[in-house]
Amino acid sequence: MIFTMEPPKVKPVAGVRRQRRKLRTPNPEVRGRLLQAAGELILERGFPSLRIDEIAERAGLSVGTFYLYFEGKDELFTSLVVEQTRLLRERLNRAMEGAASRAERGARRLDAYLDFVEETEPGFKHYLRAGSMETTVGDLSTWAFTEHAQDVLPIVEEIVGDKLDPAELELLVQANLAVTQHLAGYWLEHKDRFSRARIQKFIQDVTAAVLVGLRSR
Amino acid sequence: MIFTMEPPKVKPVAGVRRQRRKLRTPNPEVRGRLLQAAGELILERGFPSLRIDEIAERAGLSVGTFYLYFEGKDELFTSLVVEQTRLLRERLNRAMEGAASRAERGARRLDAYLDFVEETEPGFKHYLRAGSMETTVGDLSTWAFTEHAQDVLPIVEEIVGDKLDPAELELLVQANLAVTQHLAGYWLEHKDRFSRARIQKFIQDVTAAVLVGLRSR
Repeated sequence: MIFTMEPPKVKPVAGVRRQRRKLRTPNPEVRGRLLQAAGELILERGFPSLRIDEIAERAGLSVGTFYLYFEGKDELFTSLVVEQTRLLRERLNRAMEGAASRAERGARRLDAYLDFVEETEPGFKHYLRAGSMETTVGDLSTWAFTEHAQDVLPIVEEIVGDKLDPAELELLVQANLAVTQHLAGYWLEHKDRFSRARIQKFIQDVTAAVLVGLRSR
Repeated sequence: MIFTMEPPKVKPVAGVRRQRRKLRTPNPEVRGRLLQAAGELILERGFPSLRIDEIAERAGLSVGTFYLYFEGKDELFTSLVVEQTRLLRERLNRAMEGAASRAERGARRLDAYLDFVEETEPGFKHYLRAGSMETTVGDLSTWAFTEHAQDVLPIVEEIVGDKLDPAELELLVQANLAVTQHLAGYWLEHKDRFSRARIQKFIQDVTAAVLVGLRSR
């Protein structure tokens, strides 16, 4: 993971937090190390049981330093989601480059998304539960949907833009994101019964059916 | 609202709770009054700012009595979701009775669902945020999806059961529930831009497109 150098702009508005001293010149490298350490620990054993002293230790920093950069676990998680959303958007857009057809472009995008879901499984599962956290930019998962919607909108617009008005295109993007995320989560909870290939094909078939059906209205 | 006489079986596993004295013979009428009072107050001003003393006062009971029936606000909310899910299932199934066609049956079901969403708006919004609460039966919204899936499965089975295997039918039901719930929530957040009729028609069109598309594979 390569973390951005930008300070966090999205923060939770509730939950446990400490009054903390603000750094006038925060060190982006230190912030990145804390996020990196937290990301690793979440992969190893999920988010809920993580303790801040463990994150600090893994990063080779003190608990006091942690609190110079984050108000608590919720803000840390929010920052991770913001970073991961940025990285995921880049990755999905890159995955589509050079595709020979619209169908292949969609397939590649979905494939890269499921790669991400699989790679970050413990964090993704926690996000499905904690994503509704209230932040300074509203509900965290609504924010993430809005981010991804910017990339999906031009894709569906190219396919059905002449048949749907802007409001319908917006709803279509929301529906696509909701189904994809929900079925990815459902797959993780039921890996014993559904292979990744099956989930992937099902999402593709449903997406294709919707696009064909809306074109022929 | 008419609340069931059954004691609560679904409880949150985390959050603030009190060690409480268990009643050997809880009074279902008292429990119902507390749920009723909470339901009314949520409609008036949402869930987050509600205080337990207000709920008790509205029910004409003491705070001590509240804690004889519920461990705290989370358990109260979970109980409300369980009750509402049961009432909603009955209502949706009743709405479909006597429909002249499959299309009309689906339209009536969706119409009744959006009635419910509109009537319970503040509670529904809170559910979209707090539904991922961990309970004794797992994630609360996963539990509710599983409840509704029992009613939706026979409907889609009748339409595409000969074309899809059981695993695909299961995914189709999940996709349908996810899209319907997400777009209902999206509508509530953007009522200035989307009429109810527009959301309703869009969900119907998308559902029809998926069913037609999967039939013709």
